[in-house]
This record gives sequence, structure tokens and C-alpha cells, in this order.
Amino acid sequence: MRTAERRERLRATAAERGLDAVLVTTLLNVRYLTGFTGSNGALLLRTDGGDVFGTDGRYTTQAGTQVPDVELLVDRATVAGLAREAVRRGAGRIGYESHEVTVDGLGQLERVLVDAAAGATVPELVSVRRAVEVLRAVKDDDEVEALRRACAVADRALGELAAEGALRPGRTELQVGRELDARMLALGAEAPSFETIVATGANSAIPHHRPDGTELRGGDLLKLDFGATVDGYHSDMTRTVVLGSAADWQREVYALVAEAQAAGRAALAVGADVVAVDAASRDVIVAAGHGEHFTHGLGHGVGLEIHEAPGIGPLGAGTLAAGMAVTVEPGVYLPGHGGVRIEDTLVVTADAPELLTLTSKELLVL
Amino acid sequence: MRTAERRERLRATAAERGLDAVLVTTLLNVRYLTGFTGSNGALLLRTDGGDVFGTDGRYTTQAGTQVPDVELLVDRATVAGLAREAVRRGAGRIGYESHEVTVDGLGQLERVLVDAAAGATVPELVSVRRAVEVLRAVKDDDEVEALRRACAVADRALGELAAEGALRPGRTELQVGRELDARMLALGAEAPSFETIVATGANSAIPHHRPDGTELRGGDLLKLDFGATVDGYHSDMTRTVVLGSAADWQREVYALVAEAQAAGRAALAVGADVVAVDAASRDVIVAAGHGEHFTHGLGHGVGLEIHEAPGIGPLGAGTLAAGMAVTVEPGVYLPGHGGVRIEDTLVVTADAPELLTLTSKELLVL
Repeated sequence: MRTAERRERLRATAAERGLDAVLVTTLLNVRYLTGFTGSNGALLLRTDGGDVFGTDGRYTTQAGTQVPDVELLVDRATVAGLAREAVRRGAGRIGYESHEVTVDGLGQLERVLVDAAAGATVPELVSVRRAVEVLRAVKDDDEVEALRRACAVADRALGELAAEGALRPGRTELQVGRELDARMLALGAEAPSFETIVATGANSAIPHHRPDGTELRGGDLLKLDFGATVDGYHSDMTRTVVLGSAADWQREVYALVAEAQAAGRAALAVGADVVAVDAASRDVIVAAGHGEHFTHGLGHGVGLEIHEAPGIGPLGAGTLAAGMAVTVEPGVYLPGHGGVRIEDTLVVTADAPELLTLTSKELLVL
Repeated sequence: MRTAERRERLRATAAERGLDAVLVTTLLNVRYLTGFTGSNGALLLRTDGGDVFGTDGRYTTQAGTQVPDVELLVDRATVAGLAREAVRRGAGRIGYESHEVTVDGLGQLERVLVDAAAGATVPELVSVRRAVEVLRAVKDDDEVEALRRACAVADRALGELAAEGALRPGRTELQVGRELDARMLALGAEAPSFETIVATGANSAIPHHRPDGTELRGGDLLKLDFGATVDGYHSDMTRTVVLGSAADWQREVYALVAEAQAAGRAALAVGADVVAVDAASRDVIVAAGHGEHFTHGLGHGVGLEIHEAPGIGPLGAGTLAAGMAVTVEPGVYLPGHGGVRIEDTLVVTADAPELLTLTSKELLVL
């Protein structure tokens, strides 16, 4: 099972750091390592093997089905139960996720360990920081397949709505957004990947505009940023179209963003520095005199979260590896006027990146 | 504005505890106290007044619209920025939300305070625990109105689907769940309140069954637990129906749960102990010999979260107050056979509780 392979990768990390065990409590990390999709679960990963998956009584059956290959502990106080198991099995140094465990949570954990040690040496808690998130940045085949399906749902939902004439003057941003969401659900999405952005006219110049009662009008830009979640994996795509007929300035801005986006995609290569990838796209926009109108980073990793490692921007750090799934989404926003963003989800490979969002990037005039 | 009244209530709490300021970082608490609905925001509430709302550059415009009555600080490192403001304005004792701030987050906050103090006395960080959640348990008129609308969307979605014959043998749990979700969106919900539960036949005996490809069959129970989110407020309702015709055992279990649910609703009164409210309903089920088949608490508060204070169950603590919005949801689950749950959302008042979920609780045979 893929999840067993993922646990082995974390086990290697734990051994390197001299830990006897890692208490994984970030729910998405638990899902990644075990396949468990319920709302309460944690994993005690032991460096010597003999892991324990913990959940509460609501999920006994589900855990049996989804996590058949890991010993199960059913305990209403799941994390405390696993901490006691760690002590019982002799762990001296226990890793924990300090970016997820709250101050109150750490206090409770420390009290449980003191109690469980019963006078013997109390195990030491050591932060592993984002060790699991680092593993998650590189997708395996199952994950890429889920992303492909998530992107296909988003592609199809937009294609159907456009074909049905749903993107026409007189309709509101909210109506379009809700139809897009409903269509993705009807096509098999579990949920939209995030709050769908529908922004028309001057609103399209707001990078994260929330859809409101603004009506679509002929001659306006219409920016749609949305995605579908399938098997827990998120797609992310932005397309900008024009209603009626396109003005020269709209064609110019669109062509510029399209060129910058192509340059960004072309820069996605194994070993590429994320700052250089951002620059490859940004330089095109800066050279055209619109640098100040591109106000965000170029892209981000996608997977079990809509935003995850790696970040691709001027302040990023690190290099790309084969199997990383990322977005490339430059934009030019002219305040009070209108804006264009074009975004794809892609997978980095040893060759050209694999494009997962297949909707055309020609300027569509509806 | 309601949000100003809410901040005054928190200010009184802060003064009582001898704090100079409270750094509110739980996003829903920030929304409750300011009206801000973006994905990054924090509030520095100062005991002497002169609060500061912080967010990043994406939300400058939105903050101006939604939080016009609080000074705005735009800072990419929002919480750090507010902490520096607290020091600059002379705060000596700063409350923080230890149930939300992570171990890493507290470390960062401490470093910011040391830097900002620049050699002078470093302010003390003091946990306020769930001070804002305690305030949130009692709803004001705006909140009750939002809950009414959320419940109305759920009522209407189920009513329409039933009238259209969508709940018929041969369809799958997944199909019904997705249609219910899509219909709620079409009727104006921002999102479903939680992952909709559709459980038929033996699956109805699983309290939190996740809808799957199981087909609805004549003679089976069909349990639907779902809700709509409107303006951030969550409705929560469960109805159980029978497809085709009801067997005697189904009628008996249904009548028992309906009687227990009515007893629970009747026990909702100002000053009632939550354990006693749970018992009022549970005793009916225990007296009928089904105590072991009612495996969860009676209900919970609802509002900006689907589960919030107060908890109503055998292990709960505290008493009800006017304005609390809660669910009453007893169930009887016969493993391998079938189960019935009936759930309403209500508001506690000085008189009889106000029922917000208006769908009939007669046993519906579809």
C-alpha cells in the first residue's frame, strides 16, 4: 500500500533525528500516512516499527476498512491514549508536530507522559516541525491520479457552463459561482477546493474578490478562479474571459499574462530554484512595465491542501523535485479597471511538466 | 453595531482578569468580534479601548468595508504586527488564546515581544482560554436571524427533494447526498454545514455513516443528517424516513425516539443543567430498554461552528441561558439492522424554546 511506503519514508526521517517515535496529530498528515478520512485520528509511528493508529468509537469500523495494516487503538482521548502507548513501549524521545499542537495541547500531553511514566524517566518531547509536509510535497502516483481527476472535474464543469450560456450578461457573480460549485458537485467533486472566485468588470482587478451581486456586462472581463476536491486532492485553475467583444487593452493585458504564464510553466524543471521560476514569469510582466500590477507570488504546491509546499515566489526557498504538483498563476491587475489571471495546475517531471488543467488558454470571447 | 457590543463584553472580561489587552487569533472569534470574513485577520483588543484589527494586503479593501469602526493595521505578519502595537501602546499583561495558538506560534510571539520591548520589560503572555467562545454561546438577534435563514434553507432543500421523488429506491446514498448539497447551494447556502450524512438500511445504525454507493431499497430506513451555512452560521437537522412501507419494529423505534426528542426539547429552559436536559431525553430511551443503543450525547451548541458550547450530554457541565442555540438529537441504533435519529436546532428562550428546523417530525413513508 502507498500509505505503508509513506510511513517508511517518515520512519527513516525519525531514525535520522534519533527519535524513538513520532506522534502525528495533524489530521491531513494522518490521512496521508494511513488513508484514514475521519475527523479524529492520530498516528504513533515507532522507529522500530509496530505503529499504532488511534481514533474514537465512532470510527472503529471505518478504521478497520481504511487502515487495515496498522494496529488500532480506540480511545475517546485519542492523543493521550497514543502517548500512553508510547511510554508503555519504552519510547524515550518522542517527536511531535509543534506547528499543529496548541499550547494547551502540549500541556495536556506533558501531563499524560508524567502520569504514564509513573515515577520512571518521563519521555522527552521533540518538535519534528513539518517533517510530514516535506514528504507530502512530492506526490506519488496515486496522488497524481487523484489530482488529474480533480482537475478534470473543474475543466468539465467550466466547459459545460460555458456551452450552456451560463456566463452571459445580466447574471450575477454569485449566481455563476454557485452554479460552478453545484456543477462540480454533480460531476463528482466532494467539495469546491476553496471559495470560488467570480470577479467581473472592475472586480476582476481584485486578486481575491469574493463573488457578490455584481452583474456580468458586455465588454467586461470575467475572472474565474476555482477548483474541485476529489479523494481529498485539490485542483486549482483560473481562466479570464471577455463578454461580448474584447477591447484592445484587454487583448494586450491578456496576451502579456499568457506569455508570462507560458514562461512560468516552461521554467518548471527538476532542480529549478523556486525564486528563479517566479522570476522567469515575473520578468515578462516587469519588462512590459506592469511589475507593480502583479502583486502576489507565482504559485504554490497543491495536494491534500489547496496551499502547501513548495511556495513559488520572490520570497520562496528551495528547489523543485519530480512529482511536485504546483500552480503557475501570474496576474496583472489594473485597479478600478480590470485584471487578468491565468492559472494551471501542473506536475513537475524529469521532462516537460505535465499539465493537469486542460481548459484552453486562448482568450475566450463569450 | 453588534460587533462593537460584542467587543465591549470581551473588554469587561479582560478588565476583570487584570489584562491590558487580548490578542484574539482564532479566526472565527475575530469574525465574531469584528465582522471580518477573510482568511487572515486578528484583533488586538485593549482594555482601555483603542482596538486594532490586523490583516494582510489582500484584504485592505474588505477590511475597510467590513470593519470600518476599528483601526486597521496591514501587515503580512499580522499577529507579530499586532503584538508590536501592543508593546508600543504599553501593554504589560497580554491575554492570548492558548487553545488556538500553536507551540511554534507562541515561540514566535515571545520572540516578537522581546524584540519590540528593546531592553525594557517584556510583556507577560497570559492564557484567556476560551473567553470568546463563552461569549459566543449566547447568540444576539443578528445571529439568531442568520440561524433561522440557515435552517430554512435546509428545510426547503429536503422538502423539494422529497416532493420531486429524489428519495426513491434504486438511488444511492452518494447521489442523494450530493443532490441535497447542490440544492442547498442553489437555495443560497454558502456551503453544507458539514459532510452530509445519508445512511440507509443497516447503514442507518451507524451514527456518523459516510454516504457511499449503497442503494436505497423499499422497506429500509433512510437517515439524513445535514445542514446549511448562511452568513457563516450553521443549521443542523436529522430526519429519518421509511421507503415504501414501515415495519412494526421501525414504527416502534421511531415513536420511541420521537418521544425522547420531544422530552429533550421540553427540557430546554433557562437555568436547566445540561446533564439534566440530556437525562430528560435519555431516560425515555433507557426506560424502553434501549439505553445501550443511544451511544452519543443529546446535543450541542451551533453557530459560527457546527459544534460549539454548550455540550449537552451526560459528561457536560453548566446550565442553559436565554439565547443559546442548541441541537436536540437522540437516536436509537440497532447494529446490523437500522437506526433512527431525530434532530432539531432550537434557541433557548425565557418561554418555550424557538424551533428553527421546521420540517415535520411525523414518520414519513415515502
